[in-house]
Amino acid sequence: MNIQTTYSGQNVLVTGGLGFIGSNLARRLVELGANVTIVDNLDPDSGANLFNVAEIRREVRVIEADLGDEAGMKSAVEGQAYLFNLGGQMSHVGSMQDPFKDLNVNAVAQLRLLEVCRAVNPGVNIVFAGTRQVYGKPKYLPVDENHLLSPLDNNGVSKRAGEMYHIVYNRVYGMSTCVLRMTNTYGPRMRIKDDKLTFIGWWVRQLLEGGEIQIFGDGSQMRDLNYVDDVVDALLRCACHPAARGKIYNLGGEPVSLLDLARLMVETFGGGKFALVPFPEDRKRIDIGNYYGDYSLAKDELGWKPCVPLREGIKRLLDFYIENKAHYF
Amino acid sequence: MNIQTTYSGQNVLVTGGLGFIGSNLARRLVELGANVTIVDNLDPDSGANLFNVAEIRREVRVIEADLGDEAGMKSAVEGQAYLFNLGGQMSHVGSMQDPFKDLNVNAVAQLRLLEVCRAVNPGVNIVFAGTRQVYGKPKYLPVDENHLLSPLDNNGVSKRAGEMYHIVYNRVYGMSTCVLRMTNTYGPRMRIKDDKLTFIGWWVRQLLEGGEIQIFGDGSQMRDLNYVDDVVDALLRCACHPAARGKIYNLGGEPVSLLDLARLMVETFGGGKFALVPFPEDRKRIDIGNYYGDYSLAKDELGWKPCVPLREGIKRLLDFYIENKAHYF
Repeated sequence: MNIQTTYSGQNVLVTGGLGFIGSNLARRLVELGANVTIVDNLDPDSGANLFNVAEIRREVRVIEADLGDEAGMKSAVEGQAYLFNLGGQMSHVGSMQDPFKDLNVNAVAQLRLLEVCRAVNPGVNIVFAGTRQVYGKPKYLPVDENHLLSPLDNNGVSKRAGEMYHIVYNRVYGMSTCVLRMTNTYGPRMRIKDDKLTFIGWWVRQLLEGGEIQIFGDGSQMRDLNYVDDVVDALLRCACHPAARGKIYNLGGEPVSLLDLARLMVETFGGGKFALVPFPEDRKRIDIGNYYGDYSLAKDELGWKPCVPLREGIKRLLDFYIENKAHYF
Repeated sequence: MNIQTTYSGQNVLVTGGLGFIGSNLARRLVELGANVTIVDNLDPDSGANLFNVAEIRREVRVIEADLGDEAGMKSAVEGQAYLFNLGGQMSHVGSMQDPFKDLNVNAVAQLRLLEVCRAVNPGVNIVFAGTRQVYGKPKYLPVDENHLLSPLDNNGVSKRAGEMYHIVYNRVYGMSTCVLRMTNTYGPRMRIKDDKLTFIGWWVRQLLEGGEIQIFGDGSQMRDLNYVDDVVDALLRCACHPAARGKIYNLGGEPVSLLDLARLMVETFGGGKFALVPFPEDRKRIDIGNYYGDYSLAKDELGWKPCVPLREGIKRLLDFYIENKAHYF
């Protein structure tokens, strides 16, 4: 398995490819010489942003469609060697406000897509973007893949259903599917205009506009963050590694408290302020406490580990938005 | 907690109440003096059968509606003290043939019902009928509630989504919900006309009609069976026990091999034949191997244990169908 050569000349489909992780993946795939097709529905609640692919716009095919659109997806899936299935509804709070949309996107449409693949391209190698949200509040740390799954919000339920379908389609139909459970991913091209998808994106906007970073609670909550390039690397390894078929892998990184993260961001930016504030009620109810993941399975089987140190990643993140903020809010 | 008195004069809703377990529960609730309302959509693929409630027909209110019918369910849910949520799509093979129906009934409609309860009756005590299918192929025996969840078919995915929603609505909204993960339930009023829902029902029909009981594989597969009265008892305990809120419990019974079970049924019936046959392909792919559950949590917290011995239960089962078979196929 050599990522430098595996994807050259291959047909690759990226769902959610105008979003944060999808667009970074698409850029990398173009570099690697793949023929990239992006499917995205440009949902205004998602991270989709045409600027994310501006530099590769001539080298990728973009199809505007819902994942659940059977006819549209059939033509998108045909002839693809790889399918990176990153399209989804990611907002935790949003999943409580509109649970049916969340379920429809993350489970019904995923099932539809798997059925489409089974019908027109059963040999395609599929990687599904899962989330650490399926674990709920950790019972021990770091959280490995055997940890009990007790999601604390509707998004954890729907994403878990989506990943289970991918595993069932491997077991029952022999399809090549695997799941990466991502933790907090950050980097260029994330949504920063509001706090719907990530707190980090929202903090970036506060820094850029001179606002105050608000940390919920006492700031001692631990999280592990992955720079987006490391996540892209994990996706590329998963899709082509025979050991990954039918498997679920955690990603993960070095734990940091939210307070220390805020300090680091302010320091790196060279200014800005933060404050500890009480949890809003709708956040408190679905907060998972401390979380960081055990990624030793991905390390052992796929040779993956995060390579971009937090300080370096935060610098790249802020540099990107200092230059490009006009396109993100 | 005294089941003999708890339900007297209480308003109780049973979804799937024309089906196997639902109708047995409804009969018991009528005996206990409850005001019983049944919601059922009489889906021809389900266990619904009006004969199941013939003897209590004047004492229960029957509403023909889908669980996902928001307006119909609102009026059904209002004013209820208890909701036994047994309506669902139970067929494993069926879930592979029509995965969208399976997901729609077991997850989308369940979410809709929870939203209805939250809107019009957030204090109702809800018990959701889960299934041991969510575990998939056991990694150890007996299977307890901490066992990994790796369902082998779409039905395991959708039922797991349904149970997770019930737990999330407890955690986030404080609603009184709990889940019973049932194993193979048998007894009067089960569907016996075909093998869509249970193998036991299908075996009963073979005995009654002089056909051959076909056991897939070598017959050494272990299962644990619960007589329906024991399952009804567990449901009644769950719904009113404070310890059960937000909890998931296994049911379970004494393990028996399918070969021994067939022998026992033939012996009890006083005739009949059985044979070992190869697994049909669609069954083999989703077979879970040996399964029996650890029900010590339900025993410790709810005081529940199965009371009807297998031999006695099989006798009651066969006696019922010898008398009533005309109504079941």
